Amino acid sequence: MASSSRNELSRNETLSLLALSGASLLIIANTFQGDGEPLIASLALSLLAFALAYAMIRWLGPRFVQAGFSGHDMGKTSRPLLPECMGAICAVVYLLAVIVFIPFPFYKDIVAATSGGGNRDVVLHLEYVNQGRFLHRFPHNKLASYLGAIISLQTIALLGIGDDLFDIRWRHKWWIPGLASIPLLVVYFVDFDVTSIVLPIQLQPYLGELFDLGPLYYLYMACVAMFCPQSINMLAGINGIEVSQCLVIALLLAFNDALYLLTPYPHPATDSHLFSLYLLLPWIGVSAALLVHNWYPARVFVGDTYCYFSGMVFAVVGILGHFSKTLGLLLVPQIFNFLYSCPQVFGLLPCPRHRLPRFNARTGLLEPSTTPWSPDRQPHPLVARGLRLMAGLKLVAVTYDKDGLFTETSNFTILNLWLVWRGPLREDRLAWEVTLFQAAVGLFGLFVRHKLALLVFKEDNWGTAVDK
Amino acid sequence: MASSSRNELSRNETLSLLALSGASLLIIANTFQGDGEPLIASLALSLLAFALAYAMIRWLGPRFVQAGFSGHDMGKTSRPLLPECMGAICAVVYLLAVIVFIPFPFYKDIVAATSGGGNRDVVLHLEYVNQGRFLHRFPHNKLASYLGAIISLQTIALLGIGDDLFDIRWRHKWWIPGLASIPLLVVYFVDFDVTSIVLPIQLQPYLGELFDLGPLYYLYMACVAMFCPQSINMLAGINGIEVSQCLVIALLLAFNDALYLLTPYPHPATDSHLFSLYLLLPWIGVSAALLVHNWYPARVFVGDTYCYFSGMVFAVVGILGHFSKTLGLLLVPQIFNFLYSCPQVFGLLPCPRHRLPRFNARTGLLEPSTTPWSPDRQPHPLVARGLRLMAGLKLVAVTYDKDGLFTETSNFTILNLWLVWRGPLREDRLAWEVTLFQAAVGLFGLFVRHKLALLVFKEDNWGTAVDK
Repeated sequence: MASSSRNELSRNETLSLLALSGASLLIIANTFQGDGEPLIASLALSLLAFALAYAMIRWLGPRFVQAGFSGHDMGKTSRPLLPECMGAICAVVYLLAVIVFIPFPFYKDIVAATSGGGNRDVVLHLEYVNQGRFLHRFPHNKLASYLGAIISLQTIALLGIGDDLFDIRWRHKWWIPGLASIPLLVVYFVDFDVTSIVLPIQLQPYLGELFDLGPLYYLYMACVAMFCPQSINMLAGINGIEVSQCLVIALLLAFNDALYLLTPYPHPATDSHLFSLYLLLPWIGVSAALLVHNWYPARVFVGDTYCYFSGMVFAVVGILGHFSKTLGLLLVPQIFNFLYSCPQVFGLLPCPRHRLPRFNARTGLLEPSTTPWSPDRQPHPLVARGLRLMAGLKLVAVTYDKDGLFTETSNFTILNLWLVWRGPLREDRLAWEVTLFQAAVGLFGLFVRHKLALLVFKEDNWGTAVDK
Repeated sequence: MASSSRNELSRNETLSLLALSGASLLIIANTFQGDGEPLIASLALSLLAFALAYAMIRWLGPRFVQAGFSGHDMGKTSRPLLPECMGAICAVVYLLAVIVFIPFPFYKDIVAATSGGGNRDVVLHLEYVNQGRFLHRFPHNKLASYLGAIISLQTIALLGIGDDLFDIRWRHKWWIPGLASIPLLVVYFVDFDVTSIVLPIQLQPYLGELFDLGPLYYLYMACVAMFCPQSINMLAGINGIEVSQCLVIALLLAFNDALYLLTPYPHPATDSHLFSLYLLLPWIGVSAALLVHNWYPARVFVGDTYCYFSGMVFAVVGILGHFSKTLGLLLVPQIFNFLYSCPQVFGLLPCPRHRLPRFNARTGLLEPSTTPWSPDRQPHPLVARGLRLMAGLKLVAVTYDKDGLFTETSNFTILNLWLVWRGPLREDRLAWEVTLFQAAVGLFGLFVRHKLALLVFKEDNWGTAVDK
């Protein structure tokens, strides 16, 4: 279609992006000259990343198609051929941004500590560097965490591109984020190696306030790092949904981080949340640029790379920022989608290769996709009973033939379930509704986190000087 | 050909690789249990990386061909189709190895410092961690450098694969290593920001012992990081030459590092050279595995990724280990090849797309490839004079027609020049000779470095307690 060959920026777009980039560069230059607030620099850098990703997605689309990265959009009558794997561009722009950002939180201290230069082996001792620093700035000992986070993200980008290239088998795919979490865990091991968790008040009389999980804590972190990317990759299939869910999660995480910046200073968790913001803001920038191109009607596809990378961004900030439980509250729709998918994923029910909603070319609307049953190939009686129960609870759409045998069951994904509830919807309407649902659930999750957590933990770590 | 479908390991290979891996794992487990000498662990890990890379190159070759990474070997009569870009496998295995290695140099200190766990925000202060450490071990403040090095290497892997995928234009290629050097420079800026160089004795009365290059030092480092990958990428074109030159350079760098481990202890440069060994040994491991497959007659090609990545490994250890001048001495053949190529690269003479030696199917030998001249398209008179002068010095092969006009000049690469000097050679013979030349020049370079440097610098930094 014409849309895929429109790979030039319009004059308006060029001017807007140039203005945005210019303003961002000015702000960044200013933070370098003045009293350098790294958060402002991070914000400006994120705007710059938005502009760069926006332009590069447009420019490089045709090159990706030439290199074999393309796919047909099955949700349109004309089934246009679109560039695939545009998430790789986002990942590269993002990585560039977070790498370039490294000096900002340290700049002033470095200038103060090293003025006059010196021989490198006469090492400027860390304590000296630490003296000139305000505690609410990024502390020097977080540098290793930040670098470890970048390494994990680069690893997932490399492996994600490998997946998009070689179409790795599903059961091997599970291990990709696990491999990418190794750098994170290794850096965690070297830098912190703290494996205790705070226990709920109700359990404290028996087990003490802190409980040391030991190596299990690493297993827990690896599971978080493996679950986030996969669960986002599973909530996919219609224009814009991958990016919009990630944007919502990232914005809510950033909102939660911002809460900690407003607390009575000094708060022990402020640094963790600044760290998280430095990693989230550029991702919000490049994701927004991708969403413009990927929203209905999509002109590009995002590829597995985007989902993996995005999930890894969340896992990284959750693990290194020590709020993996909060992260879990924001991923409730993904967790639900994963659990809901289990019967098909683990073979209790047949699982077609693609389970995205079915496009009805006549109405132009999406309908739940289904798994067909023939009279001689019916589900196991126990499974059949489960299906009938779920059908009664409106958790699956089932059609029967005149003998009461199954003929079709809707596929077990949250998108199909939504269509079961709400009836056929246009693609963008479905994406909007699921995105708003994600936002509502996430906001409620944050409310729970900060207000109701006091029921099971001694204190919320926001607004008090005591750590969680 | 049959060679490209032989993608199973033979029984002998399987047993050898399994034995090697088993032994390596035992050694690694032992270093973790015992008094953990990280250098032993690094050696064992490098053997493991060799085994893994060896097997993966064999297994994944056909997948790469399917994904479009393949090329014909023009130096054989049958021009077989071989998998291309196998350097990407080496890069991924290598990155995995150096990431897994991170905790080894720190293990003991961590156990000592964090036994009993504790709340993460009650940060174990670095000073405390530092107390229990022997200085000849990897110091904690090198962690950031190590991570920065990994980030630079991952960036070059990402961009190198992008290059192999999208066939980026030559003039854009120059910037790829420049981009990948950003993480390195940024970490250098944050961690050291030392931009002074030691001046030769002869200049010291006028300018002092140290001279601060300021921002120019960063430019210098960026140039080193851009030159190394490109210069290795330019000395390419026949089976095995890319890998064998890199192996020779890496082995010589490791030999030079080993010299510093034998000095009277404590030596201020020991840490830098340990750091360098930790990064070089696994690269030697995966390169050796690749060489087995890439040596004449090649069963795989290495791709630009390998050359870029390899050059970046050298640049990283040279920059962060502070021996970029020594590195320069080992790269003399590459520097010569680059300078010798300039007339064609910068358009003084026409430059065909490929300048690799020409395969003579009749003799089975390689001959210098040439650029043809027609009577009405002769070089500029000045250039012609230069060519005649160089022909007199045996630096180029020139043929004239009966009127004294140029008909052919050999292409300006060291491989062609070698063939001009030595006459037609078989492909493996040429690779052997150039590799031995590289080794001889490198050894001489190290001799110059350690023996003759005293003429221009106050002291060699090997064997004295004073830093360079």
